[in-house]
Amino acid sequence: MSYDPRTGERHGEVRATPPEEVEALLARAAAAGRAVATSSPADRAGWLRAVADALEVPDTAAALASLADRETALGVARLSGELARTAAQLRFYAEVAEEGSWLGATSDHATGTTPALARVRQPLGPVAVFGASNFPFAFGVLGNDTATALAAGCPVVAKAHPAHPLLSVELARVAGAALRDAGAPDGSLGLVAGFAAGTALVTSAHTRAVAFTGSQRGGLALWRLANEREVVIPVFAEMGTVNPVVVTAAGAERLEDVAGGFVASFTLGTGQFCTKPGLLLAPVGSRAAEAVGRALRAAAPSGWLLTEAIGREAAAGVEDLVRAGGDVVARVATAAGGWAAPATVLSVEAVELVHGSRLLEECFGPVALVAEYADEAELRRVLGELQGALAASVMSGGPEDPDLPACVAVLAPLVGRVAVDDWPTGVAWTWAQHHGGPWPATSAPQATSVGAAALDRFTRPVAYQSVPDAALPPALRADNPWRLPRRVDGVMEWPP
Amino acid sequence: MSYDPRTGERHGEVRATPPEEVEALLARAAAAGRAVATSSPADRAGWLRAVADALEVPDTAAALASLADRETALGVARLSGELARTAAQLRFYAEVAEEGSWLGATSDHATGTTPALARVRQPLGPVAVFGASNFPFAFGVLGNDTATALAAGCPVVAKAHPAHPLLSVELARVAGAALRDAGAPDGSLGLVAGFAAGTALVTSAHTRAVAFTGSQRGGLALWRLANEREVVIPVFAEMGTVNPVVVTAAGAERLEDVAGGFVASFTLGTGQFCTKPGLLLAPVGSRAAEAVGRALRAAAPSGWLLTEAIGREAAAGVEDLVRAGGDVVARVATAAGGWAAPATVLSVEAVELVHGSRLLEECFGPVALVAEYADEAELRRVLGELQGALAASVMSGGPEDPDLPACVAVLAPLVGRVAVDDWPTGVAWTWAQHHGGPWPATSAPQATSVGAAALDRFTRPVAYQSVPDAALPPALRADNPWRLPRRVDGVMEWPP
Repeated sequence: MSYDPRTGERHGEVRATPPEEVEALLARAAAAGRAVATSSPADRAGWLRAVADALEVPDTAAALASLADRETALGVARLSGELARTAAQLRFYAEVAEEGSWLGATSDHATGTTPALARVRQPLGPVAVFGASNFPFAFGVLGNDTATALAAGCPVVAKAHPAHPLLSVELARVAGAALRDAGAPDGSLGLVAGFAAGTALVTSAHTRAVAFTGSQRGGLALWRLANEREVVIPVFAEMGTVNPVVVTAAGAERLEDVAGGFVASFTLGTGQFCTKPGLLLAPVGSRAAEAVGRALRAAAPSGWLLTEAIGREAAAGVEDLVRAGGDVVARVATAAGGWAAPATVLSVEAVELVHGSRLLEECFGPVALVAEYADEAELRRVLGELQGALAASVMSGGPEDPDLPACVAVLAPLVGRVAVDDWPTGVAWTWAQHHGGPWPATSAPQATSVGAAALDRFTRPVAYQSVPDAALPPALRADNPWRLPRRVDGVMEWPP
Repeated sequence: MSYDPRTGERHGEVRATPPEEVEALLARAAAAGRAVATSSPADRAGWLRAVADALEVPDTAAALASLADRETALGVARLSGELARTAAQLRFYAEVAEEGSWLGATSDHATGTTPALARVRQPLGPVAVFGASNFPFAFGVLGNDTATALAAGCPVVAKAHPAHPLLSVELARVAGAALRDAGAPDGSLGLVAGFAAGTALVTSAHTRAVAFTGSQRGGLALWRLANEREVVIPVFAEMGTVNPVVVTAAGAERLEDVAGGFVASFTLGTGQFCTKPGLLLAPVGSRAAEAVGRALRAAAPSGWLLTEAIGREAAAGVEDLVRAGGDVVARVATAAGGWAAPATVLSVEAVELVHGSRLLEECFGPVALVAEYADEAELRRVLGELQGALAASVMSGGPEDPDLPACVAVLAPLVGRVAVDDWPTGVAWTWAQHHGGPWPATSAPQATSVGAAALDRFTRPVAYQSVPDAALPPALRADNPWRLPRRVDGVMEWPP
């Protein structure tokens, strides 16, 4: 079913894919696997650029943004920007694929005591992609997971997201045509819909890895399912928890500024970011909660939640937080009608922030907590009680803030990304990005779902011992046909 | 208990560590964690070299080899060689740590649309190491897992192996003293003994990763235990299955040579290698089984099995293989008395090699199967029925063998390493090595337990966004104090 969050009205339907059709799609993906795996990085880069180009054809882009807005109510402006970003991501991963470092090509010549050895990362095979509700383009059917799986040489079968099923179908159609025209093997990209189809995607013997962006409940269910297979496969589930923000003593001197930034960040996209800052920790006596409450009332954000369930859970979550000890400081309606929930700031006592409390669980939507810490010891204790998180921010008094190095050092082991005087919400797709975090923010803390290293997830190294040149894969041949950076006898070599 | 496999006599005992002592040791390791994590790669390299030096003090080396022989019956010559190899491994990982590429230091400057981002791999914290029965030095308390965890900046608590508990204690004592003298933090290396202690090692909240080498039963039990934790941790279990050897048509022309090599490889260390070739697939009509049988009788290997259980299971395994359709071609006693099992070659029909058959499960010890394949289609079918394996070998007619490229390409997706005209048994510790393989040969197919990339297992990337230089970790600071290779704005830079 497809619904309009602004009204709750149903405006379409996507047929659920029967399990036998899922299996047939995966069999096609597996059959395409060898051709996709042995294509050159330059070939794959061409496919990704073709998809990016297809998304940016003006009529297509306008139609996609409009359709996405009808299903998500995120607004055409934001969605058009996200679509442009998705095309840029596809082009970035094309560039990463071509650069080739991700293949980790490594050769050691034989010595008196060791044989010739060479190693290269090889694609795993078909990847099941479960996109996110909250980023219908950038983390959707053609988002980071699909782009990096294809870049790494793996066919993809994606699941249409129930929050934007019509858009999912349309994205797969546009990309399918572009891939075909660009010469990608038939079966490189498939789409399924429906809950049972999602289960079949994870349990099929053809599937070699799963990528997921969404709730902890959903991600862990897929992870458990994959762990019950005869051949267990990796699940890269990016789930998210409560992302903390620490205000240092010097940072508290610009509290109005911090409070305004915090409100803008936690209400962005109606609070539906896995990187939403959910807890602001400020020095005792700073009256941070009141400042955030004022900022929220001044900002008066508007927007809807993506689905009826998310709206219901956001509203219920606030009640749970109150029962667990939170005091509502400000509550502002974000919409009239449809799937809305008020934007809410609660203040809590630091002593109540203890392991197992509902206060330390994510509340998806425009909801955030503010607490004051007495001293560094209490700050460290509270941070130690938090679940592993995707990101944390420090709001400081500037680069010379004496509390900054210790604060960053305390946060780094607890999260995937630490930002200073910057909000965690945005996730840039660059070489250095790491969008992951300790369990249970992700199921695979060593992996990132955004940035150049995201390709690594869908590969597995294989070593070749004493294998003659002609029987080696291209990445390891003496003439280096793909012009890869390679490590030879321990020393990196770059193609001329 | 410590036993002599040559006689079955008990000659000592190691006290089981009570769970509360395990927890205290892990708390010490966790307390050491920050100092170990923030030490420079050069510091850690110094610690590893100090351990290597301590192992090579002649009196120490002689005493260790002698003690190891009493507990494993692997012979002083082999064990002295393995000890030297263990010291060389420690020095290799010291070199890898210092070279620093494994840290993956990456920086992107801010642009008009993206913030400054920098990423580096950071140590996970205390690692629980479960060494192997069959390599008391190279995969033991001071083996690849411990060396790479320390190199990556993680404290280690190892479990004494029940097949060589006295040696485990002695290795931890020698290394502990060397680490202390070299300035490593107290708590960098600990040792526990006993089954309950092993469970406590995996379930403790202090433990951040598990490395295991051994049986599928043992490895999967630890993996399940880790998956039931509140905070799930990665388990890098290198377990092993049946490693296949394919003889091509041209390779069959030198069958006597291949048969002799096969026997030498599958009886090495009395067949107690995870890389033992367990199945030889030769062209129809080659009479390979008879040739292997003749070679086995001529070789007349001698040796004992490591434990009473391994001896019993090896003997029972042969009976199981016979019941599953194997015909004994040759059976040769390897020892009189103690924990022995005859070296055995069985021939099987290729049609009986089907998924789920006992014939395709590992039989640890000096036991191997030989089958003939009718054509390439049957060869591919049989290979497709095998479980994922650590290694495979092709025995060819030489580099020009026309069957070679296809054979290597078919095997690569099924294993961690493909060797040509070389036996899989030896595992060199070099930059290009990959000692891993698809599930269930390992629980983490992307990881290697040997070679430069083995450090990666014990790290997790963290990204720093807009973080001032003084608050960055040394690996990412502008002045590059560790002189690391780093990627800056997508381009690799090397320290002068």
